[in-house]
Amino acid sequence: MLTIAGQTFSNRLLTGTGKFKDHKEMKEAIEQSGSEIVTVALRRVDLRGNDQYILNDIPEGVQLMPNTSGARTAEEAVRIARLSRASGMGNWVKIEVISDQTYLLPDNEETIKATRILVEEGFVVLPYMSPDLMAAKRMEEAGASAVMPLGSPIGSNRGIRMKEMISIIMEQIDVPIIVDAGIGKPSEASEAMEMGADAVLVNTAIATAASPVDMAKAFDLAVKAGRIAYESGLGATSKSANASSPLTGFLTT
Amino acid sequence: MLTIAGQTFSNRLLTGTGKFKDHKEMKEAIEQSGSEIVTVALRRVDLRGNDQYILNDIPEGVQLMPNTSGARTAEEAVRIARLSRASGMGNWVKIEVISDQTYLLPDNEETIKATRILVEEGFVVLPYMSPDLMAAKRMEEAGASAVMPLGSPIGSNRGIRMKEMISIIMEQIDVPIIVDAGIGKPSEASEAMEMGADAVLVNTAIATAASPVDMAKAFDLAVKAGRIAYESGLGATSKSANASSPLTGFLTT
Amino acid sequence: MLTIAGQTFSNRLLTGTGKFKDHKEMKEAIEQSGSEIVTVALRRVDLRGNDQYILNDIPEGVQLMPNTSGARTAEEAVRIARLSRASGMGNWVKIEVISDQTYLLPDNEETIKATRILVEEGFVVLPYMSPDLMAAKRMEEAGASAVMPLGSPIGSNRGIRMKEMISIIMEQIDVPIIVDAGIGKPSEASEAMEMGADAVLVNTAIATAASPVDMAKAFDLAVKAGRIAYESGLGATSKSANASSPLTGFLTT
Amino acid sequence: MLTIAGQTFSNRLLTGTGKFKDHKEMKEAIEQSGSEIVTVALRRVDLRGNDQYILNDIPEGVQLMPNTSGARTAEEAVRIARLSRASGMGNWVKIEVISDQTYLLPDNEETIKATRILVEEGFVVLPYMSPDLMAAKRMEEAGASAVMPLGSPIGSNRGIRMKEMISIIMEQIDVPIIVDAGIGKPSEASEAMEMGADAVLVNTAIATAASPVDMAKAFDLAVKAGRIAYESGLGATSKSANASSPLTGFLTT
Repeated sequence: MLTIAGQTFSNRLLTGTGKFKDHKEMKEAIEQSGSEIVTVALRRVDLRGNDQYILNDIPEGVQLMPNTSGARTAEEAVRIARLSRASGMGNWVKIEVISDQTYLLPDNEETIKATRILVEEGFVVLPYMSPDLMAAKRMEEAGASAVMPLGSPIGSNRGIRMKEMISIIMEQIDVPIIVDAGIGKPSEASEAMEMGADAVLVNTAIATAASPVDMAKAFDLAVKAGRIAYESGLGATSKSANASSPLTGFLTT
Repeated sequence: MLTIAGQTFSNRLLTGTGKFKDHKEMKEAIEQSGSEIVTVALRRVDLRGNDQYILNDIPEGVQLMPNTSGARTAEEAVRIARLSRASGMGNWVKIEVISDQTYLLPDNEETIKATRILVEEGFVVLPYMSPDLMAAKRMEEAGASAVMPLGSPIGSNRGIRMKEMISIIMEQIDVPIIVDAGIGKPSEASEAMEMGADAVLVNTAIATAASPVDMAKAFDLAVKAGRIAYESGLGATSKSANASSPLTGFLTT
Repeated sequence: MLTIAGQTFSNRLLTGTGKFKDHKEMKEAIEQSGSEIVTVALRRVDLRGNDQYILNDIPEGVQLMPNTSGARTAEEAVRIARLSRASGMGNWVKIEVISDQTYLLPDNEETIKATRILVEEGFVVLPYMSPDLMAAKRMEEAGASAVMPLGSPIGSNRGIRMKEMISIIMEQIDVPIIVDAGIGKPSEASEAMEMGADAVLVNTAIATAASPVDMAKAFDLAVKAGRIAYESGLGATSKSANASSPLTGFLTT
Repeated sequence: MLTIAGQTFSNRLLTGTGKFKDHKEMKEAIEQSGSEIVTVALRRVDLRGNDQYILNDIPEGVQLMPNTSGARTAEEAVRIARLSRASGMGNWVKIEVISDQTYLLPDNEETIKATRILVEEGFVVLPYMSPDLMAAKRMEEAGASAVMPLGSPIGSNRGIRMKEMISIIMEQIDVPIIVDAGIGKPSEASEAMEMGADAVLVNTAIATAASPVDMAKAFDLAVKAGRIAYESGLGATSKSANASSPLTGFLTT
């Protein structure tokens, strides 16, 4: 079971709500994914709650994790988080502070600042981050409930390119690690789990697939496969071969 | 559905029977894997059918694929195949011809010869091979029902190291491609399926896991995930980022 | 020509002075490397200048770049830099601030602070950093004369594992990029240069080779090869083949 | 020194003559590359030896290695080799037998046949091959003076994608290994040499560079760097860091 801020979850695939064709497709994809935690950009939420109110189409029982996308500074992220809570969307927040407009890479320094403030204010804080050990340590010290290092730039579908640093973070940090951004294929989600990730967050790879609903299912299976493998103890690799069948002398002995 | 020699199968994970602690563990692992095709070294079969008769512990309804492990030449492989059929083990055969004792790499030339002979004799022939396009073409021309290129040396758990050539074979060959040998992790099985493999065969990675039965389940899920992804149309990768959430001006507009 | 802080250099391989068997070997290796910039840990310098004075054995005309290794905070780095300048070792300083004792990963936040202070005080500042775009931008804004992202942990000889982020930094930052730490083979130094690095710093891979003096020469050649390739315009890669010789119909037309 | 068929060579970069803009550029590039062995497609040779006679523009003292490009069978390769020798081009021959027109992959079986015949007839035979251990063993047994496994498809500039099998061939075969085809960057040539290749052959990456003459020089340096590194004993890699400078307690002790 995955435990974040005292809550337990049995599914380790988190999904996003962006880029789907419509709410119907989004809802079906989330259902197929088995996700128990879903992120939504507050900007996308019509705070007057009209017909197009996105929250109507998030399956019941799912933990909402509003994100601060659009924030370029700690201050802006803090304001968005407060607005989110005031709007009745709960006290979870995924901090995204981004000023780089080409690669959409998070600003760790501002993210750490926002984490400190929002933890103080009682939020459950999950910072999205550029993989760096010392920044992850500061977020953990500031009270983050998990850290969310990126695998590669958002929406690039390039997989876990920052593997070296993510592995080090997994080894050195105690709070859950959720690999977020860049995962483009189920095999990459499995790999993150085999490496020891506690969960992964996938959005673009599902929402932009030819069939998002089927792809959501594929990611669900892949995350489960990777987690079981991690828990079942992967075998050792070796340079040379090891026969799985007896190889010599069948006919001659 | 996977079709080999006119038979259809819904599961795309093939398993082997070597290296398990005992028959009970083997049987449970095969069941968890969902495999509908299982390979067994004829050498391991006690042809007198006594208590330790391995075939007693292969789940019912599973297609048996005896292999010729131990053969060092085409001639030896042919003799083993005939013995297998004469023993009532059916007409499927996975050809393994190996004389290299360090990396246990198959001998394509001898394998092609054995394929020609056994197809003539009415066998359903699935040759294990060193990934090479021209050899795969000759096996296909000889009437092989599938080709089984290795990902990396048997039992090495090193993954799909011969990706370049396997991808080319997938593109240029019409019979099913089953990636065999070297797959050490569920993520690697998913990846083979995403690349377009029709199936994968896994033995060592399951049998030598700390918990083989759980690992069999993990591979089943991973193969399904990879196949769905292949069929659902993976999204494109890009060098730069693509926002999944709206990113600018949330508070300022 | 490489230009750092207004000085020009024709060689793009920087070397370190640690881990050599003795000063003689170090001196010969530096000479063979062709390096015009050499880093030395101030701690290793006997400030009384006795017989073992390391600076006696650094070839003449080489730009000295004292580093702050041993510093765990910005404050400590600043004190070491001042001590270095006061000891007559010039005004260049490579900032290393490291508190993680397992992977020896630099602390970007403290490094940025030290950069700001030392640039103010007139130093030529080259910060060693964990690859992260926003941190590199802050170092550039603070007046760093170059940024030195690590390829992989110091002394690990694991190569350029942080390629994704280093490429982005190269594209988005104007000051020279010197890839530092982790480069274990000449091919990896070439690759860094082909990617667009302005220079690389190598220490462990040279000093711990069976023959450090020869290995220094190998890295010199590799860096030159990679730089020429970068400047000469690498050809495009393609998925399929492109004949370099005419392939069809030689005998039949 | 590289020894092939009793002849020694000090340079380990072989080049091809295809795809250059004109003979002048080809000649200068070969000179800059330092190559002592150069391959040329017999088809390209005007056997009447007129003004455009390519051999006029190959630097003196260079060992000519005519290739059989255009051959689709062993028989065609044998005829081209005989024609080459009869035309006064010497007794070296690089066998290329290719019938696959998409990836231009060599046909190992036909290549082995041609090797046997041409060795019998007194040629110095260097077969171009698809990397496969058993095929390399047969070529060696047939009397090949070297084997030339491809890194990736001809002209693709994709690098050494068949690393796994090429490493095994290097370990198990005694005649020189020349990595041929696919090498697109100097770093990849260095890497082949570090792995233990005896030489590399590069054509497309030089001839299609923006500046072929400079690129030829870059490959020369890279091959030298990789070879020195191989001979000088590369240091071990490690998962964690190893300080190259003293790291603790500088100011506090």
